[in-house]
Amino acid sequence: MTDDSAPARPGLSRRGLLGLAGAGVVGAGIGFGIDRVVTPEAGAVSGAAASYPFYGEHQSGIVTAAQDRLHFAAFDVSDITASELEELLADWTYAANRMTTGLGAGKYGPASGPYDSPPDDTGEALDLPPSGLTITFGFGPSLFDDRFGLAGKRPDALVDLPHFPGDALVDTLVGGDLCIQACSDDPQVAVHAIRNLSRIAFGRASLRWSQLGFGRTSSTTRAQATPRNLFGFKDGTANLRAEDAETAKDVWVQPGDGASWMTGGSYLVSRKIRMTIETWDRTSLREQERVVGRTKGEGAPLSGGTEFSEPDFDATGRADAPLIDTASHVRLAHPSMNDGAALLRRGYNFVDGNDDLGRLNAGLFFICFQRDPRAQFVPIQLQLAKNDAMNEYLRHVGSGIFAVPPGATADRPIGAGLFD
Amino acid sequence: MTDDSAPARPGLSRRGLLGLAGAGVVGAGIGFGIDRVVTPEAGAVSGAAASYPFYGEHQSGIVTAAQDRLHFAAFDVSDITASELEELLADWTYAANRMTTGLGAGKYGPASGPYDSPPDDTGEALDLPPSGLTITFGFGPSLFDDRFGLAGKRPDALVDLPHFPGDALVDTLVGGDLCIQACSDDPQVAVHAIRNLSRIAFGRASLRWSQLGFGRTSSTTRAQATPRNLFGFKDGTANLRAEDAETAKDVWVQPGDGASWMTGGSYLVSRKIRMTIETWDRTSLREQERVVGRTKGEGAPLSGGTEFSEPDFDATGRADAPLIDTASHVRLAHPSMNDGAALLRRGYNFVDGNDDLGRLNAGLFFICFQRDPRAQFVPIQLQLAKNDAMNEYLRHVGSGIFAVPPGATADRPIGAGLFD
Ligand code: HEM
Ligand code: HEM
Repeated sequence: MTDDSAPARPGLSRRGLLGLAGAGVVGAGIGFGIDRVVTPEAGAVSGAAASYPFYGEHQSGIVTAAQDRLHFAAFDVSDITASELEELLADWTYAANRMTTGLGAGKYGPASGPYDSPPDDTGEALDLPPSGLTITFGFGPSLFDDRFGLAGKRPDALVDLPHFPGDALVDTLVGGDLCIQACSDDPQVAVHAIRNLSRIAFGRASLRWSQLGFGRTSSTTRAQATPRNLFGFKDGTANLRAEDAETAKDVWVQPGDGASWMTGGSYLVSRKIRMTIETWDRTSLREQERVVGRTKGEGAPLSGGTEFSEPDFDATGRADAPLIDTASHVRLAHPSMNDGAALLRRGYNFVDGNDDLGRLNAGLFFICFQRDPRAQFVPIQLQLAKNDAMNEYLRHVGSGIFAVPPGATADRPIGAGLFD
Repeated sequence: MTDDSAPARPGLSRRGLLGLAGAGVVGAGIGFGIDRVVTPEAGAVSGAAASYPFYGEHQSGIVTAAQDRLHFAAFDVSDITASELEELLADWTYAANRMTTGLGAGKYGPASGPYDSPPDDTGEALDLPPSGLTITFGFGPSLFDDRFGLAGKRPDALVDLPHFPGDALVDTLVGGDLCIQACSDDPQVAVHAIRNLSRIAFGRASLRWSQLGFGRTSSTTRAQATPRNLFGFKDGTANLRAEDAETAKDVWVQPGDGASWMTGGSYLVSRKIRMTIETWDRTSLREQERVVGRTKGEGAPLSGGTEFSEPDFDATGRADAPLIDTASHVRLAHPSMNDGAALLRRGYNFVDGNDDLGRLNAGLFFICFQRDPRAQFVPIQLQLAKNDAMNEYLRHVGSGIFAVPPGATADRPIGAGLFD
């Protein structure tokens, strides 16, 4: 499965050419030391032709400038052996590398190859450029049970998430042995990636849950404008940014952190958070801004200034009340309230139709990356779950935690370190 | 509700400006006679700044060059009076007209107005240009029961769709008193439109079902490249095109067609069609092409030629077998098999997570427009439901039929003809 040099075939040529053209634009996520997060060009890469290399020291799709659309999938591994699992990861690596350059998932492509066999690519992305596609793989805690002999490899940082106050998790939206995050500026390209990777996994792993996200809610580089979530507020203002030197130590697992196969990797936590937007839409502008702790238009902290001004949590107004409410989301999520802990947020807005009561089933598919969830997501979410005024309008229904191994190379597929 | 000249307010200015800039690009769907469908410029309008006027002889979103993303919603009207219904349609018209120019749904916008009231726009599109937003309203058969005294206004052409062989309709995905189709090149803009229109309807109408579509499956102008559906085939090749003079008589209700308030309108049929892509993905390329009747790569008819060659249904090959199979979709859907009937297709690909068996819940949200469903959708779908080889891979789970009235003007809201 290492034949990356498939001959140009009729069905592939157009997409192949686009892929090669796009590959000239080098993106984020590779070729930098563990203490430098990203090249300054990262923010400049965008548009349909953008292409991020799949191989590299770190996986892409983490500090990569957040693309516009998401397809995320969690898988259960079937009753297979450890070496079959290793093979699946090698097959996924091969296909993922091809697809991120704009090629089909297999060497023939969707419209050529043996006429009496199923095509090795499904075809819906045939005419589409890579559109900034990144494919990021992760391993859930359940992969480290006794099925594959991997118990000894489980990193301490890959904790089972505790029950948080207010959690309303739905079993079918939780967990997974494996996950794949596909991000692209074209949703058809992201869907094509997940669909082909599940097809390749047939008989070896099957979809447990999956999520489409239509709008990014975070900027991960300074060049990106801050997008808005479905509460109508800017989201991502105070996010960790790829350009900032300190970001590296908050995102990447460092040598000595334990589980050496994870060095250069990261931990992904996902939360499917239903937002009761109908209730939110009937609260006053005053209440909405109090809950968030920032203005709705500009996104400035309620203590004053503009979007990127530091919030001043000590500033008080009338009757000595703090300008940024003590129960506001921004105050409670801020590093100063959490022993300096910070997260790289990389979530997406979702709408999954509507419920029986005629309310849009809408919310935020929250994704964050970090070096150690025990020191980052868990304490921050405990703080928020207990005290955040926003909880009145939220319900956490899905959850996942995944160890995201370091990047693959042409010789070492994703997760090779598990089998050394 | 006719104050379109809201003063520029801090929270609105940026979007307001973008909206005005975009409005210079005049799009499809207005200002042409009933026998000319669209201006040639239509295909040239695209990109974030594109803006289509809401007011006009016809509603936009029909012959408008198909945008990339869809949010479609069907509503049940609550227990209100006819004049309250009329008022709802006027409120929707007011907000829809604003939103298609890039303004907020209400005159204050999401981040200004009385601080102790809920904002009159939800805000998630605040910084976004109109992105080609069109909002198209329709009336289902159930609106013409005895609740609003409209029974006498029901057009004969607004039939209850018959049961088609193989239908597997799910009650919660069928029907609706009203529908809104929001199309845009930015999904956040389409979602924002549906969300604000449902908010405005609060207490008067509630969501019955709704659907996001991530990728268009049709070209409606010659300038657009043909996109692909989730079977990986080009979809829209032989579609009715806005530029073609004959298209007018197939799409718009003509004077004398009955129900005079519908003159200049059209009929929308929607079908949520689940595609069993896992089965499809395991069939041979030969079988896939036989089922469709076209090649997968280029989209050429199996009788030869290139994408836009006319299929030759009489051409035969080995053993005198027809080159285009008698059960193929393209043959059975072709006007020559259906008394010349044709449709303007304007559907979207969807993926709604996955089912319990780990299969992507994916398919085509089929939308078509026509002058009279009795002569167009119904006979074509009867033909397909009985004989189409593609049925093995399809399941129709949702269905709707809606009378799409002619366009509104600043004085006459959508559906004004119902109340004359
Ligand atoms: C639907 C749920 C949520 C919504 C609507 C939401 C919204 C927001 C908004 C509007 C901001 C301010 C702008 C910004 O800096 O990005 C913010 C900041 C932040 N949020 Fe959330 N958030 C949600 C859930 C979460 C969760 C689950 C976490 C982590 C456990 C989290 C962590 C943070 C952090 C760390 C900040 C930055 C705080 C700072 O340093 O100023 N958020 N969020
Ligand atoms: C998931 C379901 C469907 C799929 C995947 C599908 C796919 C296709 C494809 C690939 C083509 C050939 C390219 C083109 O001309 O666009 C086509 C043509 C066509 N389809 Fe469908 N279709 C579906 C459902 C329907 C339905 C429900 C109808 C109407 C009842 C319909 C009516 C047509 C028509 C009228 C043509 C053009 C035929 C011609 O004039 O050559 N299709 N479809």
